Amino acid sequence: MNYKMILQYEGTRYNGWQRQGNTAQTIQGKLETLLSRLTGEEVEVQGSGRTDAGVHAKGQTANFHLKSVWEPGKLMEEMNRYLPADIGVLELEQAPERFHSRLNAAGKLYRYQIWMEGKADVFSHRYFYSLGKKLDCKAMEEAAKLLIGERDFKSFCGNGNMKKSTVRQLRQIELRPTWKGKALEIDFEGNGFLQQMVRILTGTLIEVGLGQRNAGQMTEILEAKNRQAAGFTAPAQGLCLMQVMYNKDGRPEGMPR
Amino acid sequence: MNYKMILQYEGTRYNGWQRQGNTAQTIQGKLETLLSRLTGEEVEVQGSGRTDAGVHAKGQTANFHLKSVWEPGKLMEEMNRYLPADIGVLELEQAPERFHSRLNAAGKLYRYQIWMEGKADVFSHRYFYSLGKKLDCKAMEEAAKLLIGERDFKSFCGNGNMKKSTVRQLRQIELRPTWKGKALEIDFEGNGFLQQMVRILTGTLIEVGLGQRNAGQMTEILEAKNRQAAGFTAPAQGLCLMQVMYNKDGRPEGMPR
Repeated sequence: MNYKMILQYEGTRYNGWQRQGNTAQTIQGKLETLLSRLTGEEVEVQGSGRTDAGVHAKGQTANFHLKSVWEPGKLMEEMNRYLPADIGVLELEQAPERFHSRLNAAGKLYRYQIWMEGKADVFSHRYFYSLGKKLDCKAMEEAAKLLIGERDFKSFCGNGNMKKSTVRQLRQIELRPTWKGKALEIDFEGNGFLQQMVRILTGTLIEVGLGQRNAGQMTEILEAKNRQAAGFTAPAQGLCLMQVMYNKDGRPEGMPR
Repeated sequence: MNYKMILQYEGTRYNGWQRQGNTAQTIQGKLETLLSRLTGEEVEVQGSGRTDAGVHAKGQTANFHLKSVWEPGKLMEEMNRYLPADIGVLELEQAPERFHSRLNAAGKLYRYQIWMEGKADVFSHRYFYSLGKKLDCKAMEEAAKLLIGERDFKSFCGNGNMKKSTVRQLRQIELRPTWKGKALEIDFEGNGFLQQMVRILTGTLIEVGLGQRNAGQMTEILEAKNRQAAGFTAPAQGLCLMQVMYNKDGRPEGMPR
C-alpha cells in the first residue's frame, strides 16, 4: 500500500531533509525511524525534493509503501503523537501504487522572507533573513521579470558538478511587502528547482534591491551559465517550501500520456 | 533621565524576567548587562512585573535611569542590534522622573493559548499549551463569570507565603476560539495578578472544560482561600503578557491625586 502525506516542519534544528548515516538529525531520518518503529517494517520515505539544512516547509509532500494496512487517519494520529513538536503531518491518504512524490511533482511553490527594517519580530525571527536594510522592490521586480520562463538556470545552481539538465521553467516570481512594509516575501513558482536555486535567485535579487547590480544584468547572468556570475546564496532560514503541485492523474506536466 | 520601554520576548530560552545571580539566563539580566555595557553606567531595569520561566511577552513595560543623555531612537537601535533575536525593544521614550513601570501600572492583559485538537502548528508550538483535547467552552465561560470582580484570589496564588494582600480586581476573562476551532485563547485583564495567578486560573478553567469540575465550584474555590482548592498550574509556554496599562498621568487607577 502506498501512502501520500503532506508535512510541515520548522527546519531550524535539522540537517535538512535527506537522511545521512545514523547520527545526523534529518527530517527523512526522523520519519523513517518512527514509521519503522510503528509498523515493524523497514520504511523508506520519498520526499518531493530535498530541503537544505535550516529550510522550513509548510507543504512538503512525501510518500512511502507499507506491507501492513493502516487506516490513514489512525496512522497520522500515531505519527503526530511521536514526532517532535517541530515536525507535523497535515494530511495522510492512500495513493495509487505508482504515485511517487518526486517523479510525479508538476510544480513547486517556495517562499523567501526578508526582514528589511529594524529588528525582526521576536516570534517570527526563525523564518526571516534579517537583512536590516531597505530594498528597492521596483528594481527587484524588473529583474524578476527577466528570469521568468523556461531557461537554463546553470548560473543559479549550487551544485557545480550537476550532470543533468539545468533547464527549468520558472513560472512566477511575486514580491509582496509584509509587516507594514518592514518585511518582504518573495514567492517562486516553477516546475522544479535546482539545488539552492531559490536561495541564489533571492541573493541575486537582493543585490539588485541594494543597488549593487542592475536589473538588466539578469540576462547576462543566465547566459553566463556560471555560478560565479550570479549573486550570493541567501541564508536557509528565510526559505520555506509552501506547496508541491501534482496533476490530477499524478503525471508530471508535459509528459505524454 | 528616566527611560520607559516596551519589550517583546520569547521566553522559551530564559529563566524568567528576574535577574538571579550572575549565571542564570534572565530577561532582566540580559537587558541590564547590555545597558551597562552601552552606557558605562550601572543600570537597573525595573519591569512592570516578573514573568515566570518560559512565559512570553508582547508588551512588557520596563523603565531605567541613566545619568548620560541618549536620544531614545538611537538607544533603541543600539539595544536591538546587540540583544539576542528573541528579545526586542518595540518602543523607547523618555518618561517623567518619577515614572515606575511596576508601581504605576494600572492594569495588565495576559493571553493564554491552548491547542485542543490534533498537533499544534509546528511554527507556533512554542506559544501553546498542547492539550490535545476538546474543551467545553460554554462551561468555561460560565466558570469565568464567577471569577470576575474584586476578590481575594488567595486560592489562585502560587506563593504560599504571600504576606501582602491577595485581593485583586479581575476585570475580564474572554475566551476566543482560534485556528478554526482547533485552539482556544483566553484573555485575562485585571488591575494586577498574583504569582502564577493566570496559570492557576487557566488550569482551573481547563478542568472545568474537561468536565472534571463544575463551573459553580468557582465560588467555593475563592472562598476556600487555599491553593489546594483550585486546579493545576497550566504550563508557562502558553502564557504571554500582552499589555501593561498606565493612566495618562502615570498614577495607578483608584489612587488619590
